[in-house]
Amino acid sequence: MNDFQKVLETFENQFPGRDYRIEIVCPEFTSVCPKTGQPDFGTLTFTYTPDKLCVELKSLKLYLQSYRNEGIFYENITNVILDDLVAVLSPRWLRLEAAFSARGGITETVTVEHPSA
Amino acid sequence: MNDFQKVLETFENQFPGRDYRIEIVCPEFTSVCPKTGQPDFGTLTFTYTPDKLCVELKSLKLYLQSYRNEGIFYENITNVILDDLVAVLSPRWLRLEAAFSARGGITETVTVEHPSA
Amino acid sequence: MNDFQKVLETFENQFPGRDYRIEIVCPEFTSVCPKTGQPDFGTLTFTYTPDKLCVELKSLKLYLQSYRNEGIFYENITNVILDDLVAVLSPRWLRLEAAFSARGGITETVTVEHPSA
Amino acid sequence: MNDFQKVLETFENQFPGRDYRIEIVCPEFTSVCPKTGQPDFGTLTFTYTPDKLCVELKSLKLYLQSYRNEGIFYENITNVILDDLVAVLSPRWLRLEAAFSARGGITETVTVEHPSA
Amino acid sequence: MNDFQKVLETFENQFPGRDYRIEIVCPEFTSVCPKTGQPDFGTLTFTYTPDKLCVELKSLKLYLQSYRNEGIFYENITNVILDDLVAVLSPRWLRLEAAFSARGGITETVTVEHPSA
Amino acid sequence: MNDFQKVLETFENQFPGRDYRIEIVCPEFTSVCPKTGQPDFGTLTFTYTPDKLCVELKSLKLYLQSYRNEGIFYENITNVILDDLVAVLSPRWLRLEAAFSARGGITETVTVEHPSA
Amino acid sequence: MNDFQKVLETFENQFPGRDYRIEIVCPEFTSVCPKTGQPDFGTLTFTYTPDKLCVELKSLKLYLQSYRNEGIFYENITNVILDDLVAVLSPRWLRLEAAFSARGGITETVTVEHPSA
Amino acid sequence: MNDFQKVLETFENQFPGRDYRIEIVCPEFTSVCPKTGQPDFGTLTFTYTPDKLCVELKSLKLYLQSYRNEGIFYENITNVILDDLVAVLSPRWLRLEAAFSARGGITETVTVEHPSA
Amino acid sequence: MNDFQKVLETFENQFPGRDYRIEIVCPEFTSVCPKTGQPDFGTLTFTYTPDKLCVELKSLKLYLQSYRNEGIFYENITNVILDDLVAVLSPRWLRLEAAFSARGGITETVTVEHPSA
Amino acid sequence: MNDFQKVLETFENQFPGRDYRIEIVCPEFTSVCPKTGQPDFGTLTFTYTPDKLCVELKSLKLYLQSYRNEGIFYENITNVILDDLVAVLSPRWLRLEAAFSARGGITETVTVEHPSA
Repeated sequence: MNDFQKVLETFENQFPGRDYRIEIVCPEFTSVCPKTGQPDFGTLTFTYTPDKLCVELKSLKLYLQSYRNEGIFYENITNVILDDLVAVLSPRWLRLEAAFSARGGITETVTVEHPSA
Repeated sequence: MNDFQKVLETFENQFPGRDYRIEIVCPEFTSVCPKTGQPDFGTLTFTYTPDKLCVELKSLKLYLQSYRNEGIFYENITNVILDDLVAVLSPRWLRLEAAFSARGGITETVTVEHPSA
Repeated sequence: MNDFQKVLETFENQFPGRDYRIEIVCPEFTSVCPKTGQPDFGTLTFTYTPDKLCVELKSLKLYLQSYRNEGIFYENITNVILDDLVAVLSPRWLRLEAAFSARGGITETVTVEHPSA
Repeated sequence: MNDFQKVLETFENQFPGRDYRIEIVCPEFTSVCPKTGQPDFGTLTFTYTPDKLCVELKSLKLYLQSYRNEGIFYENITNVILDDLVAVLSPRWLRLEAAFSARGGITETVTVEHPSA
Repeated sequence: MNDFQKVLETFENQFPGRDYRIEIVCPEFTSVCPKTGQPDFGTLTFTYTPDKLCVELKSLKLYLQSYRNEGIFYENITNVILDDLVAVLSPRWLRLEAAFSARGGITETVTVEHPSA
Repeated sequence: MNDFQKVLETFENQFPGRDYRIEIVCPEFTSVCPKTGQPDFGTLTFTYTPDKLCVELKSLKLYLQSYRNEGIFYENITNVILDDLVAVLSPRWLRLEAAFSARGGITETVTVEHPSA
Repeated sequence: MNDFQKVLETFENQFPGRDYRIEIVCPEFTSVCPKTGQPDFGTLTFTYTPDKLCVELKSLKLYLQSYRNEGIFYENITNVILDDLVAVLSPRWLRLEAAFSARGGITETVTVEHPSA
Repeated sequence: MNDFQKVLETFENQFPGRDYRIEIVCPEFTSVCPKTGQPDFGTLTFTYTPDKLCVELKSLKLYLQSYRNEGIFYENITNVILDDLVAVLSPRWLRLEAAFSARGGITETVTVEHPSA
Repeated sequence: MNDFQKVLETFENQFPGRDYRIEIVCPEFTSVCPKTGQPDFGTLTFTYTPDKLCVELKSLKLYLQSYRNEGIFYENITNVILDDLVAVLSPRWLRLEAAFSARGGITETVTVEHPSA
Repeated sequence: MNDFQKVLETFENQFPGRDYRIEIVCPEFTSVCPKTGQPDFGTLTFTYTPDKLCVELKSLKLYLQSYRNEGIFYENITNVILDDLVAVLSPRWLRLEAAFSARGGITETVTVEHPSA
């Protein structure tokens, strides 16, 4: 488990006999563009079906804050965060949609899934 | 039947020969966070296909009010309420979507179904 | 044909060789709650594929007005109106979505189909 | 080709090797109700996959204007316009959704497809 | 590779083992109508699943600007831009939806896909 | 006090030393058009500064329901209801805005004030 | 009184002792551009304080329909209609806001008042 | 200072030389109807110009929570809360708008100001 | 009269005896940033009270297009266009609001008036 | 001039003879709560009438970024930023509205003006 992943805490899913869906919307994500040094902003939407573990919301918030001053590209952030959550939660299914705010009049949204559709 | 379930009243479905859908939206749900003691707020949306019984709206309202001062987590509330309605109604199908209001800039929605999809 | 149904007028479908869809939205439906005597309000949305007959709009309006001072429950109104339209139109398919306005902070929508999905 | 159809002009589809979709929204359609003599208003949305021909927009506009003072029912307008466009374009697929503005508090939308779904 | 395509730059997809989706919205596209000489405006939405390459956003912006004073029809712009991106990116899948602003009260949207649906 | 006014109940304003504003929105008003016999629908918005008395909401609801089957014109309903409330409440100021739903594609809103502006 | 004005009917204001406001919204106005021969569309909003007379809605509708095939410019329509209503109603105050739909990507709204502000 | 007021904490206004405005929106207010025992819900919007003191947000939240199980009428809640804040803050100006959710299809908003307008 | 102004055509105001207001919204303005060479986009809203002359819409459109490839700053465009319209129309009053689209996450709107407020 | 102010660059107002208004919206402001160490987010809206100088947008963006990791309260940020802009621009008038995102279900907006209203 890497240093970023260690921030994520989990609690036991009390209803493992049922497939159900948890959606978590985080509209206050911010990191830094590695090329321009300018801050990026985005809304991350996690949707997952828990297996044995659920993610604790406060720790997810702190985990996302650890990117505040990191320089990283849109496509990479999205894939790396998906990988971290999959590593920690081992969910039955997880999708992450990352909608970044406009730069130069252009808006990008990256959507990744595990396992991929 | 537990004490919470006893509050729920039903009436006979007059059209059991037809599969149809009833959606009930309750935007005034409130309970208490067991960790912080702070009130939580949410909108519960029930969608179901009745079999022999339909839920009486006034009793559903009173049932939901019995959580007003209870300390319970989002994932647990949603699953427990689903179980209570299934126990009382034996519906052909029932889905509950519980959209809780933002905490720390993060919003969570839990969706459970019986039988699960 | 019962007294309510007699109000409904039809005209011949000029294009029976084609399956097509007609949607009719009636936001001004009102009846009376049989329990409290208080008026209920709702929006009825009919969607259907005509066979030999289409419903005439003015007569549909008058038909719906005949419920203005009738005491009848949400689930029953919706199923009875569906049955009346099916009896008069013999449509290839018909769905009725009845969205009633909030009572006690709770909103109910009933959706019925013929033949059921 | 009838007189109405003659107004419609086409141009050659430059990309016949690809199935693609063209959506055209015309919110300024108006005709006359044959029963009351009152003007009707509506929004017509055409969606089609061209084969050899595409419809020229200016001519489509003029074609729709030829209904300005014609008395014709909702269901008939929609089916007749579909037939005219199919006759002129021979499209791989074409759908027309005609949403008419409210009359007597009631709104009707007619949707036709070629070939029908 | 033609002169327009040469403006497009790419970077290596770091996660080729996963099928994921990138959506890019460009609301500031403008070109010129070849018939009237008047400027056209539109919003282009690209959605694609990268294979080995992703498109660099700044270069996509410059590529789209090269149409600023070009005279070209809606259907052609959309298909040509799709072809250019396919040539440069060789994506697993790519869809382009081009929504042009209203002319004469009529709005057109062209949607193309590679490979076509 | 006439028969309509008798339905209205009041309670004592506990804060007569302060000028403050109460807004009451009633979206479920319905009466009957005296010319066509067709039902009319509207939203009534009362805004007032109480003097010694406030209007009790349940009784206001019942008062408005007494128009359910009355034939009366828009301008008259609005002025008569204003007069009734002024007679019963003797408010420092009261405005009534009555927004009726569309008839023949035309919507009317009548706004009256006491004392007039 | 000219031929257009003769279509307008009035009824007596039952509450002349009170200054109050009537707003009438007509979203289905259409006339013809005298330069291009193309139809124009617009939403007319009348707001007035009646003196001795109110305008009858059905006749206002017919009056506006008499412009359906007339060729007249935006600024002129708006001023002429204001003048006609002032001639027929002698209102204490009347404003007409005419919002025409976009032409060539440009939208115009003309607002006239009597007496002017 | 009463028991409710004691929950409110303040901090020193660092910019007393400038008249400025603070708006605080609390959409999660809930109390109990003294007549029916049913919970009420509302959104409270405070707007004020501080003099020597500003209200601390966390303590305002706790203060509002002390009404969670109190039975109190709309008009009284609003005036009492205004009085409490005025007692604790001695603001140059303070307005409270309390918008309560619909009951029986009727919505009420109470707005109070200190000093009154 | 400079070269830009010469493109603007006028017609005679037929109602000079009345102060009235014309609003013209042009959402398709584009020019070039003199610093970066990148295109800028904006919505221009003109509101004016004509004296002897009104601006002809087609010529206004062509006038605005003459900025398509000009390099000019936001504040300057807005003031220069105001000056040009004032020079050509001599209006009783004219306001121009220019809302430019976001650059670097920041949006600017410039509003100028003649005579200034 | 302090270190924060030095980041702000200006350019000469080319139209000092005219009072006009510039509005700048910055939806990507973020700082840190000095009490909890948690990031805060907000939208800053500047509106000003320039005298001799206008603020350069890129430098305003960099100036706001210098608060990214600073711990400072809502009321203080807003007043300090106003003071900095007044010091650098000496505007005829400047208003800053700072709308911060919700914390604990409560949203605060601070509005300051120079000179104060």
